[in-house]
Formats: sequence, C-alpha cells, structure tokens
Amino acid sequence: MKISKIDHIGIAVKDLKKVGSLYSDAFGLKVSDEIDAPERKLRIAFTEVSGVKLEFLMPTDKESVVAKFIDKRGEGIHHICFEVSDIEKAISELRDKGVELVDEKPRLGVEGDKIVFLQPMSTFGVLIELKEK
Amino acid sequence: MKISKIDHIGIAVKDLKKVGSLYSDAFGLKVSDEIDAPERKLRIAFTEVSGVKLEFLMPTDKESVVAKFIDKRGEGIHHICFEVSDIEKAISELRDKGVELVDEKPRLGVEGDKIVFLQPMSTFGVLIELKEK
Repeated sequence: MKISKIDHIGIAVKDLKKVGSLYSDAFGLKVSDEIDAPERKLRIAFTEVSGVKLEFLMPTDKESVVAKFIDKRGEGIHHICFEVSDIEKAISELRDKGVELVDEKPRLGVEGDKIVFLQPMSTFGVLIELKEK
Repeated sequence: MKISKIDHIGIAVKDLKKVGSLYSDAFGLKVSDEIDAPERKLRIAFTEVSGVKLEFLMPTDKESVVAKFIDKRGEGIHHICFEVSDIEKAISELRDKGVELVDEKPRLGVEGDKIVFLQPMSTFGVLIELKEK
C-alpha cells in the first residue's frame, strides 16, 4: 500500500457560517455552499488549498459523532483523509500489519467514494480516513 | 491575504520511531531522519504526501507545549501550517479582522522560515501556523 495524496482535512465546527467567513474573508479562500449529510447528522462545507480540501463538519444532532467530539475536545481538526487506489487491498494489508478499522468494511462517503476510518488507537491518536479514488 | 498552500500538518506523538514505522511500513511513505529542535523542546521527523508534509513532533521535555497538549488531549493532530508570501502583511490584515496571534511577531521556525501561530480562540479551535515562503 502507498498513500498517494491527502484528499482532505476534516475540521469539527459549531457554526459553518462563521467559519466560512473566516476562511473566505480573512484567508482569501473560496468556500463552497453547504451540503446536508443527514445520514451522518452533519452539514458540510468545503474549501480547497492547492489541491487539498478542508472539510468543515457541523453536527446537526447531538448524537452525531462530530457533536460528541466537540463536546469532549472542543472545535478543531477532526481527521485527515488519504487517497488510496484500491481500498480493499489497503484494508487487507493494514489488517495484516495490525492496524484496526473503525468500520468493518468500506462504506460510501458524502461524495460517493468508498471510504473507511482507521481506529485512532492503531494510528497514535490520529483519526485517519482512507478514500478510494 | 491569500493562503496559497498547506505547508504541513503538525502531529503530536510520544514515540517518533513507532510512528515512523507506521507511516513507512504500513502507509508506504518515506520518513525523514529525526531532527533535534532543543529551542522548542522537540525532536521532529517529517514525511511528505503529494507536496504536503506531515511533521511529527515528539516532546523531549514535559514543559514543551507539545507535551502539555499530549497530557491534555492525547497524541494526535496538533496544527496546520499555511504558506503566505508576506507574513508581516498577513499579520497586519488578520489583526485588522480581529484575528489574534499567539506570538507578538514572527519568529524563525525549525526550518529557518519566518513563522507565526494564530490564537485558536480566533480560528474556531484550529491551531494555525503561518509560514513565509
């Protein structure tokens, strides 16, 4: 397995509009329209810096995993997503090396790609998402 | 001001060797030699994914700010660093927009570039470093 690219950095936020204003007005970036992701109990917006997206994740329900993250640790960087060319092969190789997964098998992310999250206890506290592209 | 690039993502770790093994053996990335940064009470290693560095920060003293971060929140993603072309101009513009800085003025980072950290309370919990390049 070889990680070829950072797809995005996920950032947990309480208020998409305020965060969008900071990144557009203060940092000069173009922030996307907001997207609803009801299956993840999230509302999402993106910006992009030299090919890497910043994915702003606002919980819409207190049971959202992102709401629980904010309750526990406050707003901030939530995860990093790496691109892989073959997610099934990547999962198999990582399991062989003792890396555990949050999900048993890949599921579809909000952009329709196959994704999987690795267990942060296996990756020294960093929540890593893999995305097949 | 316009952010043009993500320079690196800083990751707080307890054991550079173990983390280096994960990123090299499991993720197929080339991890640098370790660098001492005694003025920041850190030992550092890098890897790179499509032009963005991951900067692994291991505290060498319990008074290091990274040691305090790990004590409070555990290992994990610590900050994100954006490139700017003129750091003095960026700081002046950000101050005008009410964004506060951790440092009063730019200082030299471990790679010799001018850097400054923004106050996370001004940036919705994300510790942002600006680097002039």
